[in-house]
Amino acid sequence: MDVPELVQRARQADPRAVARLITLVESNSPLLREVAETLMPFTGQAQVVGLTGSPGVGKSTSTAVLVGALRAAGKRVGVLAVDPSSPFSGGALLGDRVRMQDHATDPGVFIRSMATRGHLGGLSAAAPQALRVLDAAGCDVILIETVGVGQSEVEIVRQADTTMVLIAPGMGDGIQAAKAGILEIADVFVINKADRDGADQVARDLRYMQSLGGTHSEPGGWRAPIVKTVAARGEGVEDVVAAIDKHRDWMQRHGELLRRRQARAAAEIEAIGVETVRTRFAEIHGAAAVGRLAERVAAGTLDPYSAADELVASLTASPDGSAGSRSDAGG
Amino acid sequence: MDVPELVQRARQADPRAVARLITLVESNSPLLREVAETLMPFTGQAQVVGLTGSPGVGKSTSTAVLVGALRAAGKRVGVLAVDPSSPFSGGALLGDRVRMQDHATDPGVFIRSMATRGHLGGLSAAAPQALRVLDAAGCDVILIETVGVGQSEVEIVRQADTTMVLIAPGMGDGIQAAKAGILEIADVFVINKADRDGADQVARDLRYMQSLGGTHSEPGGWRAPIVKTVAARGEGVEDVVAAIDKHRDWMQRHGELLRRRQARAAAEIEAIGVETVRTRFAEIHGAAAVGRLAERVAAGTLDPYSAADELVASLTASPDGSAGSRSDAGG
Repeated sequence: MDVPELVQRARQADPRAVARLITLVESNSPLLREVAETLMPFTGQAQVVGLTGSPGVGKSTSTAVLVGALRAAGKRVGVLAVDPSSPFSGGALLGDRVRMQDHATDPGVFIRSMATRGHLGGLSAAAPQALRVLDAAGCDVILIETVGVGQSEVEIVRQADTTMVLIAPGMGDGIQAAKAGILEIADVFVINKADRDGADQVARDLRYMQSLGGTHSEPGGWRAPIVKTVAARGEGVEDVVAAIDKHRDWMQRHGELLRRRQARAAAEIEAIGVETVRTRFAEIHGAAAVGRLAERVAAGTLDPYSAADELVASLTASPDGSAGSRSDAGG
Repeated sequence: MDVPELVQRARQADPRAVARLITLVESNSPLLREVAETLMPFTGQAQVVGLTGSPGVGKSTSTAVLVGALRAAGKRVGVLAVDPSSPFSGGALLGDRVRMQDHATDPGVFIRSMATRGHLGGLSAAAPQALRVLDAAGCDVILIETVGVGQSEVEIVRQADTTMVLIAPGMGDGIQAAKAGILEIADVFVINKADRDGADQVARDLRYMQSLGGTHSEPGGWRAPIVKTVAARGEGVEDVVAAIDKHRDWMQRHGELLRRRQARAAAEIEAIGVETVRTRFAEIHGAAAVGRLAERVAAGTLDPYSAADELVASLTASPDGSAGSRSDAGG
């Protein structure tokens, strides 16, 4: 099956075509460029919602019940679950995902795990394409669930139109969130396990920190609502759906949706550009130019910054000013 | 104090000068290039030993007792501890480090934590420089301790001349290690907590997997020894020191030390080169060229790969073929 036919079938919500296209973009297939080109006109409809938070806060359970609530509201839903990248524990944290099995036979739900194993740039490049596949397949909402630890997961959450930060009482997350600048990235706070002691205190802490000001506190700006849930019992999930809807409406009214998507596109273009240059360096490396520089650095006769200057100069001096081998992968 | 004076004092093992230089390279100071250039002639003596393994395997304790054993052998020791990058839990895992306090007043030991928080490229660039500072300060052995989860920590371990993989019985690590290709990167296996049930089985599993062949199994090659320790009681630590010494001797006899250092230098040069290009992109971004491309991608009228081609073409077509603003930071 060729790419246009695959995209056509994906647009008709054929789950196998959707899965095949995501595999293509995830595996950095030579068809990647053609897939990206073919998908573009059918994208831009889905609201991308990122869920992040510390391990144990209930992200997988929250994702599962949120899918249920969105389906009950008649929406088609995609889930992109970003797995931990550890070479030691890869996959071990996925036990919770079994709850998603409730939705496995629902034709209105697409669920996909993406591994962060391997090159970081690879996932950063693949995730936006995977989102476009789900978007073109007609998803109204795409949830990105991360394990919430590590830089790569934070990068993925930045792919979202709406970022939900999950917090649970008794984990000290309020203060950690403040330290990490999470207040700035959260569009919606969800205090999960809100039946536990300390839920009110977490909410008060968050409101207090919000009151101290920040990027969202200008007049007419968005102040992240604080929603309490007990995801394991499905409590509060409608409030989460309402908060997500409200955030989308606000973004559309204020031009924020377009602004975010343009910023995301800029980051994506830069990431692909850097990856292209990295590939060019690898080609130069193969040609032993880097090797000769490396010999001098290892011998202590050249510092690595001066060596890098020579490498970059060799790149920009290249008679072939195109984007290198990636150009060959197009249709 | 200027850079040559700082380097001079660091060479006399002044701990404040060492700390100040590492802070300079970690903070991506404008003096970074001058620091790198000034340090280069005084580097290459230290053996860099990476310690990695799953959380809970006893890395911090092993590092602490290993420092003690190396000191007892009359060696000057540096420790570079790479912290977790989580925006939520940053720093929270460092409780174990308190054991290192035993060495805090020993003038023959330099201990430094580096955060992976912030940009990945930043740490990848800063770690080799921090190692050079400790090297120039006369360290015979530099231990790099990571939390052992995530791609960035693995990258750091690749900075090592000798990589020690710690495993503990009952964690299923033998099989995980095999899956993750850890057999190939380990120069020394340490089975810590070897007084627990299952230690012999882990050793048998490792030996069996080694017998199946791999990069280290050619005749005259290095087969990673398997050392058993109970780090909490200091048992077996002399065997670890002996294994590290033996590996260094083998590398020197076989030209492997130089080969590894050249490969590392090549990776470092490429990383700095990519970072330089990223900075150039950011400058272009500021000049709104990326913004115009991003508008078209966000509108669905241009795919991000074609946009990236245009960005890279604009870089290589630049009339200023030098390495950009980094060039100005030199002495």
